[in-house]
Amino acid sequence: MDKEKIKKILKDVKGGKLQVENALKKFRDFPYDDIGFTKIDSHRGLRCGFPEVIFCRGKSLSQIAAIAKEMRAVRPFLATRADKKVYQTIKKIIPEALFYETARIVAAVDRKRKLSRKSILVITAGTADIPVAEEAAVTSEIMGNKTERLYDVGVAGVHRLLDNKEKIFQSNVIIVVAGMEGALPSVVGGITAQPVIAVPTSIGYGASFKGVAALLAMLNSCAPGVTVVNIDNGFGAGYFAGLINK
Amino acid sequence: MDKEKIKKILKDVKGGKLQVENALKKFRDFPYDDIGFTKIDSHRGLRCGFPEVIFCRGKSLSQIAAIAKEMRAVRPFLATRADKKVYQTIKKIIPEALFYETARIVAAVDRKRKLSRKSILVITAGTADIPVAEEAAVTSEIMGNKTERLYDVGVAGVHRLLDNKEKIFQSNVIIVVAGMEGALPSVVGGITAQPVIAVPTSIGYGASFKGVAALLAMLNSCAPGVTVVNIDNGFGAGYFAGLINK
Amino acid sequence: MDKEKIKKILKDVKGGKLQVENALKKFRDFPYDDIGFTKIDSHRGLRCGFPEVIFCRGKSLSQIAAIAKEMRAVRPFLATRADKKVYQTIKKIIPEALFYETARIVAAVDRKRKLSRKSILVITAGTADIPVAEEAAVTSEIMGNKTERLYDVGVAGVHRLLDNKEKIFQSNVIIVVAGMEGALPSVVGGITAQPVIAVPTSIGYGASFKGVAALLAMLNSCAPGVTVVNIDNGFGAGYFAGLINK
Amino acid sequence: MDKEKIKKILKDVKGGKLQVENALKKFRDFPYDDIGFTKIDSHRGLRCGFPEVIFCRGKSLSQIAAIAKEMRAVRPFLATRADKKVYQTIKKIIPEALFYETARIVAAVDRKRKLSRKSILVITAGTADIPVAEEAAVTSEIMGNKTERLYDVGVAGVHRLLDNKEKIFQSNVIIVVAGMEGALPSVVGGITAQPVIAVPTSIGYGASFKGVAALLAMLNSCAPGVTVVNIDNGFGAGYFAGLINK
Amino acid sequence: MDKEKIKKILKDVKGGKLQVENALKKFRDFPYDDIGFTKIDSHRGLRCGFPEVIFCRGKSLSQIAAIAKEMRAVRPFLATRADKKVYQTIKKIIPEALFYETARIVAAVDRKRKLSRKSILVITAGTADIPVAEEAAVTSEIMGNKTERLYDVGVAGVHRLLDNKEKIFQSNVIIVVAGMEGALPSVVGGITAQPVIAVPTSIGYGASFKGVAALLAMLNSCAPGVTVVNIDNGFGAGYFAGLINK
Amino acid sequence: MDKEKIKKILKDVKGGKLQVENALKKFRDFPYDDIGFTKIDSHRGLRCGFPEVIFCRGKSLSQIAAIAKEMRAVRPFLATRADKKVYQTIKKIIPEALFYETARIVAAVDRKRKLSRKSILVITAGTADIPVAEEAAVTSEIMGNKTERLYDVGVAGVHRLLDNKEKIFQSNVIIVVAGMEGALPSVVGGITAQPVIAVPTSIGYGASFKGVAALLAMLNSCAPGVTVVNIDNGFGAGYFAGLINK
Amino acid sequence: MDKEKIKKILKDVKGGKLQVENALKKFRDFPYDDIGFTKIDSHRGLRCGFPEVIFCRGKSLSQIAAIAKEMRAVRPFLATRADKKVYQTIKKIIPEALFYETARIVAAVDRKRKLSRKSILVITAGTADIPVAEEAAVTSEIMGNKTERLYDVGVAGVHRLLDNKEKIFQSNVIIVVAGMEGALPSVVGGITAQPVIAVPTSIGYGASFKGVAALLAMLNSCAPGVTVVNIDNGFGAGYFAGLINK
Amino acid sequence: MDKEKIKKILKDVKGGKLQVENALKKFRDFPYDDIGFTKIDSHRGLRCGFPEVIFCRGKSLSQIAAIAKEMRAVRPFLATRADKKVYQTIKKIIPEALFYETARIVAAVDRKRKLSRKSILVITAGTADIPVAEEAAVTSEIMGNKTERLYDVGVAGVHRLLDNKEKIFQSNVIIVVAGMEGALPSVVGGITAQPVIAVPTSIGYGASFKGVAALLAMLNSCAPGVTVVNIDNGFGAGYFAGLINK
Repeated sequence: MDKEKIKKILKDVKGGKLQVENALKKFRDFPYDDIGFTKIDSHRGLRCGFPEVIFCRGKSLSQIAAIAKEMRAVRPFLATRADKKVYQTIKKIIPEALFYETARIVAAVDRKRKLSRKSILVITAGTADIPVAEEAAVTSEIMGNKTERLYDVGVAGVHRLLDNKEKIFQSNVIIVVAGMEGALPSVVGGITAQPVIAVPTSIGYGASFKGVAALLAMLNSCAPGVTVVNIDNGFGAGYFAGLINK
Repeated sequence: MDKEKIKKILKDVKGGKLQVENALKKFRDFPYDDIGFTKIDSHRGLRCGFPEVIFCRGKSLSQIAAIAKEMRAVRPFLATRADKKVYQTIKKIIPEALFYETARIVAAVDRKRKLSRKSILVITAGTADIPVAEEAAVTSEIMGNKTERLYDVGVAGVHRLLDNKEKIFQSNVIIVVAGMEGALPSVVGGITAQPVIAVPTSIGYGASFKGVAALLAMLNSCAPGVTVVNIDNGFGAGYFAGLINK
Repeated sequence: MDKEKIKKILKDVKGGKLQVENALKKFRDFPYDDIGFTKIDSHRGLRCGFPEVIFCRGKSLSQIAAIAKEMRAVRPFLATRADKKVYQTIKKIIPEALFYETARIVAAVDRKRKLSRKSILVITAGTADIPVAEEAAVTSEIMGNKTERLYDVGVAGVHRLLDNKEKIFQSNVIIVVAGMEGALPSVVGGITAQPVIAVPTSIGYGASFKGVAALLAMLNSCAPGVTVVNIDNGFGAGYFAGLINK
Repeated sequence: MDKEKIKKILKDVKGGKLQVENALKKFRDFPYDDIGFTKIDSHRGLRCGFPEVIFCRGKSLSQIAAIAKEMRAVRPFLATRADKKVYQTIKKIIPEALFYETARIVAAVDRKRKLSRKSILVITAGTADIPVAEEAAVTSEIMGNKTERLYDVGVAGVHRLLDNKEKIFQSNVIIVVAGMEGALPSVVGGITAQPVIAVPTSIGYGASFKGVAALLAMLNSCAPGVTVVNIDNGFGAGYFAGLINK
Repeated sequence: MDKEKIKKILKDVKGGKLQVENALKKFRDFPYDDIGFTKIDSHRGLRCGFPEVIFCRGKSLSQIAAIAKEMRAVRPFLATRADKKVYQTIKKIIPEALFYETARIVAAVDRKRKLSRKSILVITAGTADIPVAEEAAVTSEIMGNKTERLYDVGVAGVHRLLDNKEKIFQSNVIIVVAGMEGALPSVVGGITAQPVIAVPTSIGYGASFKGVAALLAMLNSCAPGVTVVNIDNGFGAGYFAGLINK
Repeated sequence: MDKEKIKKILKDVKGGKLQVENALKKFRDFPYDDIGFTKIDSHRGLRCGFPEVIFCRGKSLSQIAAIAKEMRAVRPFLATRADKKVYQTIKKIIPEALFYETARIVAAVDRKRKLSRKSILVITAGTADIPVAEEAAVTSEIMGNKTERLYDVGVAGVHRLLDNKEKIFQSNVIIVVAGMEGALPSVVGGITAQPVIAVPTSIGYGASFKGVAALLAMLNSCAPGVTVVNIDNGFGAGYFAGLINK
Repeated sequence: MDKEKIKKILKDVKGGKLQVENALKKFRDFPYDDIGFTKIDSHRGLRCGFPEVIFCRGKSLSQIAAIAKEMRAVRPFLATRADKKVYQTIKKIIPEALFYETARIVAAVDRKRKLSRKSILVITAGTADIPVAEEAAVTSEIMGNKTERLYDVGVAGVHRLLDNKEKIFQSNVIIVVAGMEGALPSVVGGITAQPVIAVPTSIGYGASFKGVAALLAMLNSCAPGVTVVNIDNGFGAGYFAGLINK
Repeated sequence: MDKEKIKKILKDVKGGKLQVENALKKFRDFPYDDIGFTKIDSHRGLRCGFPEVIFCRGKSLSQIAAIAKEMRAVRPFLATRADKKVYQTIKKIIPEALFYETARIVAAVDRKRKLSRKSILVITAGTADIPVAEEAAVTSEIMGNKTERLYDVGVAGVHRLLDNKEKIFQSNVIIVVAGMEGALPSVVGGITAQPVIAVPTSIGYGASFKGVAALLAMLNSCAPGVTVVNIDNGFGAGYFAGLINK
């Protein structure tokens, strides 16, 4: 899996430092920690540029505590879709962890990290889209990116957006969060050269089908520089923006 | 059904001009012409303000010819979803009928009619939306409305729309035709006080699902002054706009 | 954005009343109030003929209070999808606000406004459709329209509708609210020349799919003078009817 | 399976007329003819009151010919979704077979059969629904039912329907065939006590989704005496009506 | 609407018994009671063979009470989707009303009515389908039909069904209630000549999509004598069966 | 139904041991117990290799108790989708019953049964998929199969899976449980010759549509040795694996 | 990837037979042939028990020819969804290849292979399902399985199935192919202990939605020993059955 | 729109070089060319970093010719979804245009442009995905990016992917193109830190629903660094990758 590691093993075998049987076992030492119900991918930080993240929904508090214990030294530490109880659970294990309530995130960062020079801008169409936008923005910040916000500038009053063009032009990557008809990413994509990551939200009712209308609109954007993540997936958008902004 | 008519019948019965049995039959004289396979709703012009319209798709040329014969004196005469063969068939029966090829309409109007003072504006997002837009615009014109066009001003270059604000403000009713993400009606609805009739088109591919994405976007418009018709239903939009513009 | 405003600025610059840098800033003075989490579109009354409306679902009481404070002088003031708590919150800020419970609306109107001469008629198919119909009717009234109601006249007993033809003929715009099979707008559209705005409701069960069956029926109406709004969107129908009735 | 048949076998075994092993085999003699690629259910006439019917779509001409040969003596003989080539193929085997072109049916009936006294009425909303309606009507006639037709009386001109109330009241079972918004069965079901069998058709475009809109409307009919068959399934409606009319 | 009634009015007018103006009003006396929020279709018993039925879901207790008061003398009286509170509300107004708990029905019948000679058979695939089946069976009984039940004979053990063939053959109409894969109506339709009314239920999970899988299966039944009602619509099936069984 | 049984009856009839009428009745003695609301398929153990299983969801505690009483001597006894209350109910009737809480199963096995030599391996993509996986694993064990588990080895860190290849190669049948994008069965199917049974779970959010995304992915697997069961149907997968492993 | 292979490399390195750099390269020698547009997985026969199969749809004749050349010595050779032109193309390269026209398969087998003792049974509901069934049956035979067929025994005449119980009981694995309502797998699964692989077909019309109705029915089968493959995926079913039958 | 431009105008007005009325007109000089049926967004190159692209599907040859004439000097010139006839049409106007047949692209580039140092890697799961992948790859190249290809490495033989890890690690952005179950982007996203743009293709059959299965899988990817574009939208993926790679 890892060229240098294999080379080292082979050299050790050649030099007699390592027995064949033991060398064979080395190939088993895959970089994860098996704690029974889960296998923590401790290698991910090296492999993918960011450590594994805890998606809290569907996990019990005791499962979250067990994972947090294994990862207590990992920085940045990030747990999404967290509520107050999750925060209290993690705080006992990682005292410096902070709770970003609107974003539903619990996180702990390396104090010495520096923010990126270039910034990520998070835009929302409406007020109700803010929790998803905050999930994106806080994820982006935790990953070390300078992060700007521009909220409630939906297409029903497009002048609110056009008035903020400079903010848009000064960013390096743009995340656009919108529910209902999901039209905002197309408009933003049409006025700028920055890559736009569109996040449909489940905001709406009736024929919005919990975000499907916005999702379809974004996938069919007539502006070409737009890609899409899952409905309400603020974390995914923030993470992807962080990968680009590096 | 018709208060005055019933009153007249009753008076005639009272005055002895009409036998009870014959009066009874009068209630049967419903205003349509039964020509076997179809019942032409000749009363519609009085009842709904516009004569019956022939939707040609799914009808044979001989069926269309038979209906056209029955309706040859009706003005305006309107046949939608028509191709060249339909036109040639109708022209033999109604020589002054014209063929609007892009709109797929065959029509004959009363030469003395006057156009409305207030105008209907038909807007498209893209070039490929024009046939549906023309179906709306020609229907609007046939109904006697001054009709303006503003084509290819989709949200991927929103300045093309904003540059035409005066055209928008001068209209009385607006029809917005768009496929793909169907975002344009929301933007138009957000900058003007005119009622906006949104027409989703089947233009697009993949997750546009033949117009469903645009339809859902329009139904979920965050701008309140927007209503929606069926996918590709240019006729319905033009007709509805005509009812409003009266 | 605003021709006269730009002209004035230009003249002031020419006349030396205004510095270039300050003039430049003027172009920034877009007409909305930024109160952090939301940007109130205070310009909408001028631009779209009706002030911004608060859609309460998904907003916290403190957010609603903050918006209400900003908009306390705006008339008509309209908040939809409101419950008793929303009402109590707004009442503290706008004492003359009224709560229309069935319609789920909190509103305050200019006492001196006059009602339109021509009326809007709101029809329902069943009893369970009344809350959505009231949202439409109250919106219509708040906007200054004379508003009539005709409830529970669905197609399973079509004589109830036909018996009220005169009420239908005397209106200027018709809103038809129906769930289940959503057939009523077609029947109404077939007997009158008024524009019909169809509102599908989520009333029904099983294969009604929370209003989808009614929505599809309405989009496919064989009567041409019918347009459609989102499922349960009584406000949108009332607002659109108000735009037409002006 | 068949009480009397089992009794007979048992008695024959008791009386020594039948060996146990042979009796056992008797239970195998199921009433169908196995001609390789298909198993003709020759027992169906007794069991279900009507012989097996050939659904031609998806079968080759040689398969149809082989089945027709096996069933050449069966009356009534019925083949649906047939075109001219199918007719020519069957005619060679069953010379008295007739081709009902609009209904897409090839059939041969017992000349001595008598029609039922009570009649089945087939109604359509539009002209384009007629082929499906004819499939229902011809099936009904082939099964021996007096069959009436009432075509093109859709809800956009409901007076055309109401004018034919007597025809409706005189029937025993009603089949209503409609595409687009599929509203007609509800209206019919609301004015009469006869059972109504609703047939959605694929007539329509855009959000009719090839008959789905009509199907959903019919399943959600607010008139209780309505059941539904598959989209375009005229045969099934005619057959079911025939079962009731017996 | 009513031939004899019109004749009578006409004769009275002719004979001078009735003033024209008063005669005119008579045409307004449509047979329903308008109690504000609802219009009780008191004419339905004559027109459709069965009085109007109260669908309780979505109606408040006070609305139900008001309707029950208007209909207190109507027999049979039938309220569906009722719970205990609905029962207690109605019982105060109609003391002899009974509560069929599993069927969720409150009903009061004419004591002198006689049951039909021919019977309706209600079959279920599983135990969980019984509430819907009871809604059908109790409706059928209230309408005066002899009603049999055969529960839990689904296709996973088809011998349980085949063992009850005689029960099946002795019935006049069959209702088959099934969730999950909805296969039972096809099997029943294949072994008998009786009309089969299929009721899909929302029993199942995952890809049953709350009854959609069963609904689609039933609409596509390869046995021809099968029609379908809405998901969980036991009342509709019982009512339709009652119309046939008359 | 049962060749030997019929033979025996026939011989008894021949030998005079059995009257024809009584023999006839024997054909009625179908092997199930009718306890009113349900028909317990006591014959299933012989016919299908495993006794009937109680699906608890949608059944009342008293219904479950009644069924458990009838089946108290059956081994293995298996009740799925059970909670603590179900367990307590069954325990009173079958004291040795055990509760597998994560798997939501109550079961009692024959103590003398022996486990299979060849094993079934249950794999999950994530931690949240474990309850469904346990339903499969416990079912498999109750049926007498040696059962292995390999949890949390999803495709986002494919090395965790590849590291466990030996475990995969040593199994005889593999069950793969995954939500979200449902990609794991394809990867497993591509590295091994064992049959793979894929179980989509409802784990995910937004466009996972409660397991539909995973279900579709699994049905479209590019690896050929993969079949699929319903969403969250751990029992079905475990049962099918058990049939294969015999 | 391959334990023994790694061991051998390590020993060769230790013994000096292999240079470290060359050993490193060995880890690259993955077992596939890269011919530009495709990577033939020549290792699959060893890894998955059956060589790679060519899915012809969507591949050009020249692509198929290129792949066939690479695989000309592989046995069994199998190409699915093939038409006559594909056959002629392959025959030039592999002269002994045979064309199974109904199954749309081109194949070449090792002449010395022996058929399995235990058999796979392929059942269809109707005649139109036979092409998909033949794809399954021929795949099964090519893989070396004794294969039986039982066609046209759908649930509309369930006695045709029950009459063939012995054929069912004598098989080891059963494939059930059905379109329309897809009910047959449940019935088969309920009468036998063999694993049942259900194949939905696109046979049907209207609400069958090209096989979706059958697919959903099969996923919701109330008989537990049933798993499902993609619509029309006869190959997948035959392949999976072959894996089990080994 | 453009700060400097406004400043310049203001200064000219101040300095008397420009009349107020003329200045006002300047604000109208929006940067697009109106050629009747379309408005070419000639400003897009400056605004969005890449000139407008011609989407040929749905446009007539004469429309394409007219647009090509307007844009003949623009570089890079790009027309997608083009066939041979489109190429011949454009070649007459832009002689140096090239036709990329598999990619369905006609393009002309600036000869002096330099390729980026960092590369974009385009991966496909299968052979049939190549046309969409080529659309992405050619777009990427036309935009000036070094572009690598890695085709036919789908998850059914995951070793083919793992064998090419170095190619993956050396790229800067990755596009993954896959149909059927769409699992490949998750696996790629799990082994690398590069941003992954997932392109679902319509390759597949049955329950792939023309790419919907792959689309949903990609939206639900458990690997976080993945975003998605529309089905078959190779151009969008290539364009977005180009924006990132700048």
